[in-house]
This record gives sequence, structure tokens and C-alpha cells, in this order.
Amino acid sequence: MTQDLRAFLKQKADNLRIHSIISTSEAASGHPTTCMSAADIVATLFFHAMRYDRHNPHNLNNDRFILSKGHAAPLLYAAWAEAGIISVDNLLDLRRIDSDLEGHPTPRLDWVDVATGSLGQGLSIGVGMALNGKFLDKSDYRVYVLMGDGESAEGGVWEAVALASYYKLNNLIGIVDVNGRGQSGPTMYGFDIDSYCRRFESFGWNTIAIDGHNLDDILSALDSAKASAIQPTMIVAKTIKGKGVSFVEDKEGWHGKAIPKGEQLDAALDELGPLGSNGGFQIETPAVPSNQAAAEMREVAPPDYRIGEDVASRSGYGAGLAKLGDANPQVVALDADVKNSTYAEQFMEKHGNRYFEMFIAEQNLVGSGIGLSKCGKVPFVSSFAAFLTRSADQIRMSAISQANIKYAGSHAGISIGEDGPSQMGLEDLAMFRTLPGSVVLYPSDAVAAERLVVEAARHEGIVYIRTSRPKTPVIYASDEHFPIGGSKTLREDSNDVATVVAAGVTLNEALKAYDQLKSEGISIRVIDLYSVKPVDTESLLRAAAVTNNTLITVEDHYREGGIGDAVLDAVASCGVKVHKLAVTSLPRSGKPDELMEQHGISAASIVRKVRETI
Amino acid sequence: MTQDLRAFLKQKADNLRIHSIISTSEAASGHPTTCMSAADIVATLFFHAMRYDRHNPHNLNNDRFILSKGHAAPLLYAAWAEAGIISVDNLLDLRRIDSDLEGHPTPRLDWVDVATGSLGQGLSIGVGMALNGKFLDKSDYRVYVLMGDGESAEGGVWEAVALASYYKLNNLIGIVDVNGRGQSGPTMYGFDIDSYCRRFESFGWNTIAIDGHNLDDILSALDSAKASAIQPTMIVAKTIKGKGVSFVEDKEGWHGKAIPKGEQLDAALDELGPLGSNGGFQIETPAVPSNQAAAEMREVAPPDYRIGEDVASRSGYGAGLAKLGDANPQVVALDADVKNSTYAEQFMEKHGNRYFEMFIAEQNLVGSGIGLSKCGKVPFVSSFAAFLTRSADQIRMSAISQANIKYAGSHAGISIGEDGPSQMGLEDLAMFRTLPGSVVLYPSDAVAAERLVVEAARHEGIVYIRTSRPKTPVIYASDEHFPIGGSKTLREDSNDVATVVAAGVTLNEALKAYDQLKSEGISIRVIDLYSVKPVDTESLLRAAAVTNNTLITVEDHYREGGIGDAVLDAVASCGVKVHKLAVTSLPRSGKPDELMEQHGISAASIVRKVRETI
Repeated sequence: MTQDLRAFLKQKADNLRIHSIISTSEAASGHPTTCMSAADIVATLFFHAMRYDRHNPHNLNNDRFILSKGHAAPLLYAAWAEAGIISVDNLLDLRRIDSDLEGHPTPRLDWVDVATGSLGQGLSIGVGMALNGKFLDKSDYRVYVLMGDGESAEGGVWEAVALASYYKLNNLIGIVDVNGRGQSGPTMYGFDIDSYCRRFESFGWNTIAIDGHNLDDILSALDSAKASAIQPTMIVAKTIKGKGVSFVEDKEGWHGKAIPKGEQLDAALDELGPLGSNGGFQIETPAVPSNQAAAEMREVAPPDYRIGEDVASRSGYGAGLAKLGDANPQVVALDADVKNSTYAEQFMEKHGNRYFEMFIAEQNLVGSGIGLSKCGKVPFVSSFAAFLTRSADQIRMSAISQANIKYAGSHAGISIGEDGPSQMGLEDLAMFRTLPGSVVLYPSDAVAAERLVVEAARHEGIVYIRTSRPKTPVIYASDEHFPIGGSKTLREDSNDVATVVAAGVTLNEALKAYDQLKSEGISIRVIDLYSVKPVDTESLLRAAAVTNNTLITVEDHYREGGIGDAVLDAVASCGVKVHKLAVTSLPRSGKPDELMEQHGISAASIVRKVRETI
Repeated sequence: MTQDLRAFLKQKADNLRIHSIISTSEAASGHPTTCMSAADIVATLFFHAMRYDRHNPHNLNNDRFILSKGHAAPLLYAAWAEAGIISVDNLLDLRRIDSDLEGHPTPRLDWVDVATGSLGQGLSIGVGMALNGKFLDKSDYRVYVLMGDGESAEGGVWEAVALASYYKLNNLIGIVDVNGRGQSGPTMYGFDIDSYCRRFESFGWNTIAIDGHNLDDILSALDSAKASAIQPTMIVAKTIKGKGVSFVEDKEGWHGKAIPKGEQLDAALDELGPLGSNGGFQIETPAVPSNQAAAEMREVAPPDYRIGEDVASRSGYGAGLAKLGDANPQVVALDADVKNSTYAEQFMEKHGNRYFEMFIAEQNLVGSGIGLSKCGKVPFVSSFAAFLTRSADQIRMSAISQANIKYAGSHAGISIGEDGPSQMGLEDLAMFRTLPGSVVLYPSDAVAAERLVVEAARHEGIVYIRTSRPKTPVIYASDEHFPIGGSKTLREDSNDVATVVAAGVTLNEALKAYDQLKSEGISIRVIDLYSVKPVDTESLLRAAAVTNNTLITVEDHYREGGIGDAVLDAVASCGVKVHKLAVTSLPRSGKPDELMEQHGISAASIVRKVRETI
């Protein structure tokens, strides 16, 4: 490194420290010391190593930077200010309700791809972006992920580490800022840099230990990383929390604390000296790729089933996804070693280059999906509904990241039968409904499943598709359509005495109940609530109005958070009576029909409930 | 190993294979081939290496065995049959609805401590049991965890691996059954035994590679493990899926598939030969520890606050937990590097020997808690409410494990303020309410928090306590009690025109709204719904009956799955109108008051809603 470059980067790093301190002091909260430990690394990345278009955050050839240690947000904002992307004055608005400079980064800001702040998630997102660069876009951008040492205890990190090595993601560069201090005490390994290195190495990474405040070290490590032909690179940087201000350096009690304005702030700024010049640097700008604008989605081949034939909705999901892949080259699929159960394998068989096997590691499955979504892809991420709970936090963060991601959970409910409760998704509707802005779809046959896959792809944002294991009769003609937010009133008569609202396997039970009651001269209305969120309030209210102000819901899900609650919420302020049939106790192994009867969601249970309410 | 012992164990292993095949064939489903790869290991453990009281599964000195690869359940059941614990005839009831021999193990069976079947969770549970043996009970039992190779991709495994090494759990012995095959294809590393070994070694484990079908290898590895003075031991065993039956050995398409009865089953049994003698072995039996019966809980010191003083409920949690620790020696606390935010540190300061720092690894935090609960401890597991979603699957499995575990989530809701959405727990009530049999508590002041900690400890089962970050006025006298399932009607008058139901920070807002409306001559009823599950239906209906058949709920949680839905569910079939005030869009950083106003859950919002409804 030249003397000039060294001096320049050193000043940039100190500028970043000064901004981080001032902005958090102004906000009277935040994490300045964790910014200070990483300032030299970030300065070297943003003002020398990384290649990006300062005028276009959405240039798909930009190098990507993910601040996995999201509490260092002020450092990131400071880097943009120093790069001339935002104004220095803006930094003083940190954490204010009218500012997008939030306490942890979110994509309210154009330059933030993904929300961070729940630790240990950044590397998985980086894996997704690196998979995209290497295998899909074939772009030579690199993905940099800055992590804290504390967060490397998160298992999700090691899922990402294993997969990055498996897929030889040499375009992925992780940096661990080892400042030795967590929030409430020392980290597990303190400054044992060797421990970190041994572990990353054992997982097949190019691993480099450096002094994180030595600019030559940082630069040469980044050069080595760029030269890696096969391996992803992990740079393990020994740093000092609060570096640059003696009275906070490596001190307890300064984790989530701003330096108070007045004497202490003045002393800190004195030590760091004045802000240096803001300009005089060049950042290499990549060209915008020619395929930057996504192609229009072509017409998707329609479903092709015979009414009455027995097909599982999960099979419809797989068939629909494979067809969607024909029509939309942006669609990719990821699965966690259950592709032969979710039927994601149907997509894999047709579009192997756009399928990624993520093995039994659901956190990284979802994190990588988020990363892919931020590269313009439309990822369909599938596993058993039960096992998507393994990535509940990543799914939660995908909402804050405003990701365009589609989740598919198969083997919903007790109707999976003998495998027992560990494999039964009974809380997935609750989990996905809770996410702000999410769409939750629940097809009752293979036609609906295929159509809803297409609807999911067309909808920008988070969509969950719930599928079932058992084969059930196809009930819809192949030209039927299923708009998000709609429902299907499948049985309707002026003499209806009750309305049954169902979806998935219980819709089939409701139709059986209809037949039985019909034979006894009792007429009921049956609604297929395939769109659980948003829900078709109008149809529900219309039905309730003619059936004694009462609705009966029936679902293969726990009583809390599923179809019953979606219906209750829709009619909450209208005084409609809702009777919920749902799973209310811990299920066990058994045959699907036995279990549905035992838990009161079978056709017979519906018949009993109808008789009870009329 | 003597020739006799070798012959004996070999026959036992083949017996296990025969039982596993027959029972799954009889059930016509299940995973026989994964049983066959592990049969030699399990035979050596159960009939030679392990020490346990065949007549007392609850002897606290028993060695523990956790079948992390839960789909090998038939192998486990076969081992008990061969040990004379259950009858061989019972094995034929596998997976039947009237049998406790479920598709994956659950504690419906006395000899199963924890449910498995969601992969990658067993080792964490083993960590909890090993922590108990080494640091609390100071018993010399060992904990054996049998894992599959596919599940070692799960991050939760690596959280456990790191922590076991940190705490020097030499009483923990893991065994990876490397049969190279997952459900839908080869595992990430196939038969690359070295890869596994390098990784476990790098994390500080005593690591031993063996041929998993060589009994001498298995025995000598177990001897080495028993001799380990400091390190936990991982035995990496190369095996063959389906070992013993040539036409399924290492073959695709035989993961979750029984061998069909008839020709194929006959051929398989022919290859394995006849069942050998069932007896002729000795299992070393440990003595029952003298402190086996848990001590009675003593009186817990009462809260001591002044009404009106500002205290955060999370602070009440910490104080209450510390006092509970005085009264009950079985109480332990675990936290994930946020003990100074959850206030678990108050327990740590008083009872350091019963506090375990689990670092930033929430899956292992919960898994270890489950393990501790199964050793008779009463674990209180705390983190930010938002970050408990990281262990949603472990929490789900804790319900199936019927664990006696207490969860505490702090920093609930938007009222945390400037740290922003990644740190806000807004879906935790939905997550915990969904669990069958769970109790969900939400104190509104420090007195309630202290009391509810004690209630949680007294209740056998899963309890969630939700606490808040901001300081709010103490509203209860220190002698107030808070039974589970109750509520407090804090404001009540014969002229009430509306009922507001709240808990946590919004209760404080409701009381402010009451004051303001009162000054305008409008009287409202205010209910503190501190027990969100079970919910006090009677009080809700009574209030609705006198306030226009209407309830207004207000909560610092997303609209789905929280207080509003709990109330709606309680009154669902009664036609009561419920107006829900809740967070309905993605929040951002800002001051707590600003955010509560922006999202419509402030006192002013309540006042507006009351005016609207009357």
C-alpha cells in the first residue's frame, strides 16, 4: 500500500468513527463502540476494495455489502456520507421517527438490501447473493459480509459456512470483527483468533487472521480473498471495541450506549482529531448488466386434471412450479432435502440449473432465499411446514427486509398420519399470518395449488403456500382461477342453515359433510377459504347473514392463529358467531382418518357441529 | 473384546434389525434402513456400554440416551424389547393410534425423555443434561446422543458443539451415524469421514472415526469417550444404510419406506437369520441418588414496590426470579448474552452456580433448557422476545416433549423504541399461544411480573412470560396475587359505556385513556388481561354484557395471534363485537410514545376508538 493510500484510508476510518460517535450521541442511544472496532475494515472496503456504482444502488453488478452486525448501523450510514451518497447532516437524524436512518439497517434506504439486527443472518443472505452471481447471473460481483464475533455462535452462521464451501462460493468474503465483547460480557472465545480460524478452515474456507486496525493487513487479506479460485474467504480480524477513544476502548458497559454529550463527547472527539477531507478518491464502477430489466413472465401452462381424480395438493405445487419455471426465468427453487416430499423435485428435474439443494439447514435455506430475492430472482423456498418454524426468525426478518420471497410448507397438519407430531405443521398459518403484509394461501386441490403458485409469483412480497400430504379429489375444473383475497362458495342454496368455512384437507371433509347432511334434507353452505390472508370478508359476511349469523370453521391446524382466527378477525366487529373446529391437543401417530376424527375435524365432526348449531 | 461378547452383541444388533424391519413392515411405513445402519452402535450402547436401571426410567443417575435421528424410532423400541423393558409383541403396534410406539419417539413412553424427529435438536438437549450432571447434580451419568449425518448440517448442532466444548462437558458423547444418504439424495459430505472429524475437532471435541459396524471399533471408541477428562467426545461412524439386507444396502429410494410384506420381507429376514436369545446379559444399574425427590418450594419473598413508582416489568422479572431462586433450588436460569436487558442477571448475581450463559445461540439455549427440565430442574430461559423466534422449532418440540420449561421474552413490541423492528417482539404471543397446553402471561407492572414468575414455576408445563422495556408506573399493591387464568378489572362502574382489554404497556395507556375520558364524563371499564392463555372468558363476557356487547382490545403486538385474538376466541360463539387495536404494519425506529401513537395503540388512540364505538 502506498503511503498516500494508507493515510487516506486512515483518515476515512477516523471520519467514520467521528460520525458514528456524533450521530449516536445526538440520538442519545445506539452502539458507537462496535462501529469503532470495524471502522478500518469498512473504510478499506468502501473506499478502496469494493466496486460499486455510487449513483445506482440497484446496478446488479455492484459488489454487495451486508452488515450482519446490524447494530453498527451508524458506521454504515457514515460510510455512505463519506462516499457522498447521503449528506453528513442527515447523520444527525439517526433513529428519529421521520428518518430512514434506523437503529438497525432496513431497506427503507435504497442502499440497504436487507434488514439486519437479528444476529447471525447476514452470511446466509450473502450465500444467496453469491449463488446468484456465480451460478445464475454469472456476474463477477463479490459479496462482503461483515459479522461480529458474538454472532458467530449462531448456528445459522455455520449452516451458511458449510453450504458456501459446498458450492465453492469464492465470490463470498466474510469478515469477523473480533472485538472480544458481547452485549453482556466477553464472547465465548474472547481474542482467541486461532479458535475462529481453525473452525472456518475445517469447513473448507480460505481463512486469514489479521489485525483489524492494520490497513496493510486488511488490504492484503482482501487481495487474497479476491484471488481465491475455489474457496470462500473468511477474514478473522482482531480489533478493539471502541478503538480510537481511550476511555471506551475495550471497556465493560459501553455496548449499547452513546457517549454522553458534553465533557465525554468532547474528550472523545478531541482524541480522534478533526474530520478529514471528504473527497479525493475513486471507486471502481461496474457496468450495468444488459439483462438488468427482468423479462416479462410468459403465460404459464394451465393445470390438467380430471375432476374427481385423487391428487395431493403438494403434487400440484410441484407441477405448477415446474410450469412456472418454463414461463419465468427468474424463478428459482430451494429445498432442504425433502424435495421428494414437497415435490420441489419436479422443478429440479426440469430446471436443474435454477434449483439449489440446501440440505437439512432451514435457516440458511431461508436466508439464501432472501439473498436471491434481492438479486431480482423469485425464490420458492420449500420444506415441511413444521420445519419452516426452524427459520421463524429469518422469515420474520424477511418481512422487515421487504423480500419478494415465496415459502411453501408441505405436510401440513395431522392429516400426514403415522409420522407423528414432530412432522406435523400445525402452527404455520399462525406464523405466516402474523407477518405484516404477508399473503397466506391454502389450496384444497391440485388445480388450486398450480394456480396459486402462479398467483404467488405475480404478487410482489411474501407469500406462503400451505400444501397437504394426502391425496384428495380434484374439485375444480382446470380453467378455474384463484385471485389472492378471494374465496369459492362451492355449495349454496337459499335453504342453507349453516355455513362451513374450510381449506385444504378439511374442505374435502366439508364436502363430504355436505353430502351426508343433504341426504338428510339439511342444506349447508360450503366456502373454500383458499386465501387465508387477505381474507374474503365480504363473502363471509354475506354467508353469515343468511345462515343465522353463524359460521363454522374447520381446519387442520392448532386452534390459534389459523383459519378460525382469520375468519374471526374478519368479522370481529360485526357480532357474527364463529364455531371453530381445530386441533386443540397434542396429536399422535395414527392413520389420517383416525386422527381427523379424534381431533374433531372430520366430516362426521362437521356434521355433528352443524346439527348442534341449528 | 472377548469372542463371547462380540458374538452376543452381533446377535443383539441383528435382533434389532429384525425387529425394526418387521415392525415397519407391519405398519407399512417408517424408516427401517436408518435403523439398520445404527443397529451395531445401539446394541453396543444398550447391552454393554450404558448404565441404567431397567426397572426405573426415572432414576436420575441413569445414563441418558437421546435418539436425535428420531426417524430410527423402531430401532429404539427394538432395543427396549431386547432389554426386556417392553414386550416384543408390542413392537407390532408401531405407529398405531392406540399405541405409544409413535412414528418418532415421544415421552408418551416412560423411557423417552424428549421428543425427536425434527432433526438436529438432540445434541442441545444432551448439553442441558450434561450441564446438569456435571455442574448441578454432580452425578457421574453420561449422556449419549445418536445423530444422523444429514442432520449435522443443522446450525443448532454447531451451537451445541461450541457450547459443550466451552463448558468442557466430558460427560457428553455424540455419535454420528454416517450412512451417507439423506431423504432425497446423498448428504453434503457423503462418506467423507475426515470432513466430519476435522470440524468437530476444530471445535475442541475428542473426535474418533470408526467403522460403525465393527464392534471392536465401537467399543474402543466408547472406552476412549468415557476416559476423556475434559473434552466432550464425538464418534464419527461410517455405516451402510440398510446394513444387513443386501437389496436395500446403500440403495436410493429406501429412506422412508418399509420393506413390503411377502417376498421382499421374507428375503430380508432370510438374510438376517433367526432372532437370537433374548437374555444372558447384565446391565450395570446405578443407585438412585439420595436427593431424587425434589424439595418442596419454600415461600417466595413478596414484591416490594411503591404504587406509582416507575419500574419496567422486565426488572420485576429479574427481581422475582432472583427471589424464586432463594426459595426453590431446582430453579435455573439460561440467557443468550442479553442478561443485562432481560434482567436474568439478577438471578445470576445471587445464584451464579445455577446460571448458565448460553451466548448468542438461541436454539441451543432452548434445547439445553429442555434437557435441564428433563433432569428435574425448572429452567427459566430468557432472551428478547424477538429472538426467541430463532428457536421456534425447538419451542414447538418442547411442547411435544412435554417439558416443564419457562420462557421469558423481554423487549416486547414497538415500545422498545429506537432500536427498530429487528429488535421488536411482535409475534411472540402468537407463537406461544399456538402451543398445545401452553400458558401465556403478560405482566403490566413489576408486582405482577414478580408474582407471575412464581406462578410460572408452580405450573407444570410450558409457560411464557412477556416483559416490556419501558418503565411504567407500578399499579398493584405488593400483596396482590395473579392466578393463572385470571384477569383484573381495574376500573369498573355501573355507567361504563365501553370495555378496554389490555396488558403490558398498553394497560398503562388504557388507564391514561380512562382518566381522560373520565374527565369528560365518560366512564369505561379497564381489564388487565395478564393471563393471555388461558383467558378469563367469564370476566370478558360479563364486561361485554354491560358495555353494549362490545370489547376493545389494545396490544403492542401484531394484529394476528395476540390479545385481540385471544379475546375473540374466548367470545367467538357469543356474538360479542370486538374492536382490535394492534400493530398492523411494519414499524420503524422512533421514540416509544411516537410509535405507539403512529400505530394506534396509545392512550389517545384508545380514547378515539371508545368515542367511535359509543
